[in-house]
Amino acid sequence: MLTSSAAGVFVICPTPFHDDGRLDLGSTDRMVEAFLAAGATGLTILGIMGEAPKLAADEAQSFAKQVISAVAGRVPVIVGVSAAGFAAMSALSRKVMDAGAAGVMIAPPAHLRTDDQIVSYYADAAEAVGRDTPFVIQDYPLVTNVVMTPHVIGRIIEQNSSCVMLKHEDWPGLDKITALRRASDSGQLRRVSILCGNGGLFLPFEMERGADGAMTGYAYPEMLVGVVNLMRQGKRREAHDLFDRHLPLVRYETQPGVGLSVRKYVLQRRGIIASAALRKPAPKLTPETIADIEWLMERIERPHEGA
Amino acid sequence: MLTSSAAGVFVICPTPFHDDGRLDLGSTDRMVEAFLAAGATGLTILGIMGEAPKLAADEAQSFAKQVISAVAGRVPVIVGVSAAGFAAMSALSRKVMDAGAAGVMIAPPAHLRTDDQIVSYYADAAEAVGRDTPFVIQDYPLVTNVVMTPHVIGRIIEQNSSCVMLKHEDWPGLDKITALRRASDSGQLRRVSILCGNGGLFLPFEMERGADGAMTGYAYPEMLVGVVNLMRQGKRREAHDLFDRHLPLVRYETQPGVGLSVRKYVLQRRGIIASAALRKPAPKLTPETIADIEWLMERIERPHEGA
Amino acid sequence: MLTSSAAGVFVICPTPFHDDGRLDLGSTDRMVEAFLAAGATGLTILGIMGEAPKLAADEAQSFAKQVISAVAGRVPVIVGVSAAGFAAMSALSRKVMDAGAAGVMIAPPAHLRTDDQIVSYYADAAEAVGRDTPFVIQDYPLVTNVVMTPHVIGRIIEQNSSCVMLKHEDWPGLDKITALRRASDSGQLRRVSILCGNGGLFLPFEMERGADGAMTGYAYPEMLVGVVNLMRQGKRREAHDLFDRHLPLVRYETQPGVGLSVRKYVLQRRGIIASAALRKPAPKLTPETIADIEWLMERIERPHEGA
Amino acid sequence: MLTSSAAGVFVICPTPFHDDGRLDLGSTDRMVEAFLAAGATGLTILGIMGEAPKLAADEAQSFAKQVISAVAGRVPVIVGVSAAGFAAMSALSRKVMDAGAAGVMIAPPAHLRTDDQIVSYYADAAEAVGRDTPFVIQDYPLVTNVVMTPHVIGRIIEQNSSCVMLKHEDWPGLDKITALRRASDSGQLRRVSILCGNGGLFLPFEMERGADGAMTGYAYPEMLVGVVNLMRQGKRREAHDLFDRHLPLVRYETQPGVGLSVRKYVLQRRGIIASAALRKPAPKLTPETIADIEWLMERIERPHEGA
Repeated sequence: MLTSSAAGVFVICPTPFHDDGRLDLGSTDRMVEAFLAAGATGLTILGIMGEAPKLAADEAQSFAKQVISAVAGRVPVIVGVSAAGFAAMSALSRKVMDAGAAGVMIAPPAHLRTDDQIVSYYADAAEAVGRDTPFVIQDYPLVTNVVMTPHVIGRIIEQNSSCVMLKHEDWPGLDKITALRRASDSGQLRRVSILCGNGGLFLPFEMERGADGAMTGYAYPEMLVGVVNLMRQGKRREAHDLFDRHLPLVRYETQPGVGLSVRKYVLQRRGIIASAALRKPAPKLTPETIADIEWLMERIERPHEGA
Repeated sequence: MLTSSAAGVFVICPTPFHDDGRLDLGSTDRMVEAFLAAGATGLTILGIMGEAPKLAADEAQSFAKQVISAVAGRVPVIVGVSAAGFAAMSALSRKVMDAGAAGVMIAPPAHLRTDDQIVSYYADAAEAVGRDTPFVIQDYPLVTNVVMTPHVIGRIIEQNSSCVMLKHEDWPGLDKITALRRASDSGQLRRVSILCGNGGLFLPFEMERGADGAMTGYAYPEMLVGVVNLMRQGKRREAHDLFDRHLPLVRYETQPGVGLSVRKYVLQRRGIIASAALRKPAPKLTPETIADIEWLMERIERPHEGA
Repeated sequence: MLTSSAAGVFVICPTPFHDDGRLDLGSTDRMVEAFLAAGATGLTILGIMGEAPKLAADEAQSFAKQVISAVAGRVPVIVGVSAAGFAAMSALSRKVMDAGAAGVMIAPPAHLRTDDQIVSYYADAAEAVGRDTPFVIQDYPLVTNVVMTPHVIGRIIEQNSSCVMLKHEDWPGLDKITALRRASDSGQLRRVSILCGNGGLFLPFEMERGADGAMTGYAYPEMLVGVVNLMRQGKRREAHDLFDRHLPLVRYETQPGVGLSVRKYVLQRRGIIASAALRKPAPKLTPETIADIEWLMERIERPHEGA
Repeated sequence: MLTSSAAGVFVICPTPFHDDGRLDLGSTDRMVEAFLAAGATGLTILGIMGEAPKLAADEAQSFAKQVISAVAGRVPVIVGVSAAGFAAMSALSRKVMDAGAAGVMIAPPAHLRTDDQIVSYYADAAEAVGRDTPFVIQDYPLVTNVVMTPHVIGRIIEQNSSCVMLKHEDWPGLDKITALRRASDSGQLRRVSILCGNGGLFLPFEMERGADGAMTGYAYPEMLVGVVNLMRQGKRREAHDLFDRHLPLVRYETQPGVGLSVRKYVLQRRGIIASAALRKPAPKLTPETIADIEWLMERIERPHEGA
């Protein structure tokens, strides 16, 4: 089961499809092995970048079972269960926890506005997924349009003992990590794991602010692992050097909408998944964009002075 | 099967629950009979007011089958299949059409902005529900945040022969009806049925602009039927008199969020459903609000000069 | 100066223009007299319905001075000073207060989300308009997209002694009035005036919940005055009868965008302003819409049993 | 006057304030010289990053006159005139054009949704600023929430001969540049200048797609100038090398809200402006954030192999 001491890199997995849009379970197994080989300390599936809303209920369950079975207990698997209603959230949560998931992740629905609405939503959601199911708060205002102060996050943590992690992807968000860590260091707030998302765009700085690692996707997850490990070893300059080498592609992947197409293209080029296909609706990569990506890959993979 | 000549009043059905939140299929049957007795020419289920997002996938199918079976072919049943992705939309659509639904209704997702995005979305959706499944465009910007011009609606109608109806609930929207009817009267646009929603708030005026009736919920659906029939008979003053008598409650029911609680309360008081319960998250009726509703019911039901 | 004991009907004034868009100061004087004759206990100018954002800075000041001078101290005049920045808010506020305004009204900007952001915004705004300038909180989520809980409103009231009034137009909002009045009745919260907006759509109910009156526009403001007075006299049935007679037009005026055009049309027809013109961008009334309005006016003005 | 052949780097100028919030006209002159020395081919003032909404009308005019006077005709100056209404837009535009501005920039208001609404808005705006005033379309959906297709931009260009430039900051937006350039190269669309914003985050790629340069702010504008020049000379690798060296800080500056504070901090540290102060509301830089910035500056300014 997921605990509040989780750390390292939980790779956000895309959902592999065949060119015709069917689930590609073969690529799923290969992807799991590749991410574990890259040093992932956990996997997260059916998130926003996992095209979760494009799956039918039974497909989501099949995919989750395949991943959990491929992982075979080597690392924890977190399943995104965000849904428009609690009945669907509860049903999916129960099924994946029975299948061996370590916990679930919940993003707030876009209509929430006030502090109390947000706190109240998470109380209901915690009940819906089961009080004994560890859950992750996904704090991603750019996509959800819901803004949570550190104080609100603290209220959710205090009210729900099953809340064990914050997936932090507010933007800007560095001072929020500092505020939350100050609160837990001073004993005002129970300490939960903080893993950072947002494509890893600020990862070295986030580690310095007190994050425990990353939970995000990137086509070269070994870089995320490397940066987290170097920062933990106090090798700040080496961490930034490694990170900055990848930043041009990280930046290219953070483009909303097209970013996932870019990531799947690179994963396919690296032999990790068989097809870069997304389900509709999805942007198509133009020849010009593919040329950009190839250029960025070549620059990342070129031999360099420090290598 | 639903056709573009549908007219009259398609009552938007709430989904009856027991006090503990389970589906109440007994009340479902009673509600169907009550609405047909009130003069409904069709029923629409699993819409926004049907708490559709709060149902798990299998619950939605059970409820749809119960309604279709209770109706037993007396009137067409339209099922809301709006979903975050096409796989879920396709799965639900296939199941309810197999069970005997007459057509499906599709609201656009909130992220659509440009004209082309909207048109393209409906092309994909029409394919997802099946090219032979009649569908209804739900045009409800107050809730969906998607604004469709008459021109965009025309493009959707022209590109998709299975589009047979517009559920019109833009606000303001009277001139939109006029524009669409002008286009179909002049032969520029295929004529589809236009049924009006938005709680019926502008129903007599909408009929004059060329609407074919209403598709909305209201705790006294016989009023909607009466207004539509009187307007068709050219009895304008009588139609407005009838409508205006109910307008105070119609207005009270149009309050976002709490409106459905009000409607279910009245339906329970009238003996049509057993419990006024909504699934979470839902506002609770305060004693003050209940007093308001009782006052409004009493004024509607009081004997009056014209009676 | 405006105080927290303000009550009655503060009529929201439209800004009269000539057909060519220039300010019509002659109509301004006539409008002021008409609204005072109708029983207004105050006037509010340069609000959302006053097309304030369409005026240049010097025009806004000219119009405010004209109204204040025409009123000549008979009732308090509140000026909307909502602005994108505090410098503009401060400049306008200083000028109109110097000219004799009784207070200012401030709506929150659309980007505010969290409770703390809202409270902090009003602290800065109160400073910008001057700590000795009485101000009104405008709580209108349908337009501002900012949602304030009773608790947040209470924090603003407690932190700013110059806050004397809430313009309440949340929707639904009846229970919010009850909550605020419960807080002030029990001594937990300083009592401020609550005047209700939203076109008066719920006015009789709002009075019962503890509102002190209305601050809204309507083409027959004497109805608002009548309803407020009847409710205060405990004549509930008569108040509702009067209100319900006007509700069809009130409802028609609440249509976003076109509503102000409707109101100005009726005011012109009643001889109160010379031109119904709005500044661009503005919807044009179609012949069909004008026919609707004429029908509604005729029904309101027809002799009736109670007259 | 600004023409459709404008190219190079138009630096978006912040508005310098003293620590107490007053306009700092001395720093203004120094900043102008620094940006021109860095190779700016134009300056843009009173944009979103210029805190324009925080200035009173007379302050905006004073600042514009100071910049125009300091530039003394050496390069064109574009003034942001976006406003909530056309009267204010017209007034500011007239004043700055009289003072010697080369053109104005107009962002669409957030409520625009449909293609026709956007096109119609720009027709009215073009009239408001004067048909002989060259104007720039600001296409920045992340901030404005208005999405313009290439087709809509084309309609605006075709309908308004005074439209000479697109400030492109859609995200993702590379394929949009390609589409617009394809349209102008094939003669379907009048060619206008395209300068890219968005902090320069994609500048080398944007140049390859056919942009004429950048219009954005960055604390080291000489980098933007260098990248644009290298790309024009066909030195792709050198351009990317230069850009990538700065990308860590560019990325840090693109954080919404806090980004401008970061930029002003660096400009102050470089001796270009006297105070890093922003007007309220503004985020404060924490010691941790300042440490981040210092680290990033040190890495940019360190001697390197290619230097």
